[in-house]
Amino acid sequence: MATMELTKILRFSAAHRLASPALSPKENLRLYGPCVRGHGHNYALEATVRGVVGADGMVMDAAVLERAMRTVIDLVDHRDLTSDVPALIGAVTTGENLALAFYRMIERALPPGRLVRVAVIETENNRFETEAAGEAP
Amino acid sequence: MATMELTKILRFSAAHRLASPALSPKENLRLYGPCVRGHGHNYALEATVRGVVGADGMVMDAAVLERAMRTVIDLVDHRDLTSDVPALIGAVTTGENLALAFYRMIERALPPGRLVRVAVIETENNRFETEAAGEAP
Amino acid sequence: MATMELTKILRFSAAHRLASPALSPKENLRLYGPCVRGHGHNYALEATVRGVVGADGMVMDAAVLERAMRTVIDLVDHRDLTSDVPALIGAVTTGENLALAFYRMIERALPPGRLVRVAVIETENNRFETEAAGEAP
Amino acid sequence: MATMELTKILRFSAAHRLASPALSPKENLRLYGPCVRGHGHNYALEATVRGVVGADGMVMDAAVLERAMRTVIDLVDHRDLTSDVPALIGAVTTGENLALAFYRMIERALPPGRLVRVAVIETENNRFETEAAGEAP
Amino acid sequence: MATMELTKILRFSAAHRLASPALSPKENLRLYGPCVRGHGHNYALEATVRGVVGADGMVMDAAVLERAMRTVIDLVDHRDLTSDVPALIGAVTTGENLALAFYRMIERALPPGRLVRVAVIETENNRFETEAAGEAP
Amino acid sequence: MATMELTKILRFSAAHRLASPALSPKENLRLYGPCVRGHGHNYALEATVRGVVGADGMVMDAAVLERAMRTVIDLVDHRDLTSDVPALIGAVTTGENLALAFYRMIERALPPGRLVRVAVIETENNRFETEAAGEAP
Repeated sequence: MATMELTKILRFSAAHRLASPALSPKENLRLYGPCVRGHGHNYALEATVRGVVGADGMVMDAAVLERAMRTVIDLVDHRDLTSDVPALIGAVTTGENLALAFYRMIERALPPGRLVRVAVIETENNRFETEAAGEAP
Repeated sequence: MATMELTKILRFSAAHRLASPALSPKENLRLYGPCVRGHGHNYALEATVRGVVGADGMVMDAAVLERAMRTVIDLVDHRDLTSDVPALIGAVTTGENLALAFYRMIERALPPGRLVRVAVIETENNRFETEAAGEAP
Repeated sequence: MATMELTKILRFSAAHRLASPALSPKENLRLYGPCVRGHGHNYALEATVRGVVGADGMVMDAAVLERAMRTVIDLVDHRDLTSDVPALIGAVTTGENLALAFYRMIERALPPGRLVRVAVIETENNRFETEAAGEAP
Repeated sequence: MATMELTKILRFSAAHRLASPALSPKENLRLYGPCVRGHGHNYALEATVRGVVGADGMVMDAAVLERAMRTVIDLVDHRDLTSDVPALIGAVTTGENLALAFYRMIERALPPGRLVRVAVIETENNRFETEAAGEAP
Repeated sequence: MATMELTKILRFSAAHRLASPALSPKENLRLYGPCVRGHGHNYALEATVRGVVGADGMVMDAAVLERAMRTVIDLVDHRDLTSDVPALIGAVTTGENLALAFYRMIERALPPGRLVRVAVIETENNRFETEAAGEAP
Repeated sequence: MATMELTKILRFSAAHRLASPALSPKENLRLYGPCVRGHGHNYALEATVRGVVGADGMVMDAAVLERAMRTVIDLVDHRDLTSDVPALIGAVTTGENLALAFYRMIERALPPGRLVRVAVIETENNRFETEAAGEAP
């Protein structure tokens, strides 16, 4: 049977700054460069599910996938990721850590075993993509 | 030897509506939502071939891939997918079923074993991708 | 005082076909080419208001403009423009006629004298823009 | 003589929140909606100069226009517009107020009478454009 | 009567380099920077016609405008603008000079008085636009 | 442990023409079509690294990846790929050969074993991607 992937893309606008509480301001600046300052992005969030195409012609109802992704969007849109999102407290909000956290949140909101990939796009120059959420950062 | 993938992207504009003849209007509405009504898209069709790079510096002449894809575009561009395309009659024209049907059509128009992936992009929010055509829907 | 323009862009997916009831199929084909067949687009709708910037830092609350544009979007999204939209019945749904009709609908939903421009984008190749709605087509 | 316009587009990423110090939190929320919360954007800044085309085939050296725009970009990129940019202190950082402020800053950095338009694009849905800077907000 | 503008956008890929035969290599480098070296772009060409909307719902048949623009595209696509295009010989192929030359070529291919604007987009950062062709450069 | 991919995208503008010195002009024309003539593109270069996310929340410092990619960009931006880039002399500058050459150059500039994919995008219609550089062309 042919397998199929459905990818849905949603957008949100959020602020963040990159700094580890374990480091001095100087070390943070060396590590994260201009991203230590408060700034923000129009992010895109991509989530991909895989499976076989059913009799209804769908691998998964796109509305189901969208609903699962909205559990993320509702928490992060028009927010400061560094301070306003409980699920992200304690994590440096790099694109990598966002992708891992969003993967886990979307996975929990979907039927088991269907999510295969999550990507976070920060700007037209940077894309972060993970195929498995692993442990919490 | 390094393998290479060439992906070509072409665009077409078509109408469609999602409804299964096996279901009542009410069931179709519950299943397909607003897509049960006639509407349309500027679709993008992506096809990917893979291989090694030849002495001519190409994995496949892009004009050959384009010609194969045009066998699809010529059938669907400026058409109603639900009623005007013989190859799609009987299928619910979800992005998934389009991707499967287009995969088979492009595969037949190319040298055997070269096509590896076909994607159908409905809008900037939805992408459907398959790596193998499987049986007819 | 400096004047300012706010342009909001919303998207919708719709089907249409171009054919005048006053013409024969042959004449319609000569006039509208492949657009005489049922097809569709991911349209973008742009509306622009102009004015001076108030003490709140806004030329108009963007939510007010969005609400006015939604009166259009709600009528046309996931519809067949040729047959399903009462406000368009009798008009050939060219980009020009859509822009004129949408201008009038948005104008009625806004405070008088604020709307200055409406554009309809059919594809990445075609843009239709009007600065005043004039009489009904 | 034909007149020509050169438009240059540069991008920056910044945080902001919309709230007037003169208003209560409740009033700010009613006026600015979710934008009262800290969030951010990948902004685009467009500046347009007009004139006749010289013997060098240019209306203005694009490097001169870019340099003038960089006086803005250097102040706002990877910053929080609400708190970190002296030139914006006291202004609610709506797209409109940003466009007015950036107009004045670019105008000062260019030969007199050349700048004709500045636009700030917040997201793919919102564009703010001014043709004359007027007085300070 | 409402006026309407139709803008059509076509794309072409071409090489060019900026250097005036009247200048020394050093002067050309100072004036044109890295553009003195051979390089190229995926250009976009935009042409706008204006008028009233006719009984056919069109301000101008889009196929007529496209045909006029193809007289340019056919000359410049997959060419070196500096050496291969007779109509451009002797001109420094800045975006400005291209816009002026293309305006004249498209104007000649259209019914008189209909063309109102031509834009040449070199990259996502640079746009050149003219509203009247004026004399030859 | 979850693996992560970081993809960085940079752009450059370059000229090229496709022709093999081993072939006659007629054979080159038959093989490469209009690409035998000098032309050019706004290219995008994508490079992807893979790994586990470290304590700093990053799979690799994006500035390190950007620096490695700049070793390519500095050689090819605003250049004629056919004649001006020593590393490409003797290769037909197809998208495939560019992707292979750029893969090797970026790989040499990065810590071993981190680069997993390089893509060259010539236009919105053509993408060339390789996962391993293989031998020199």
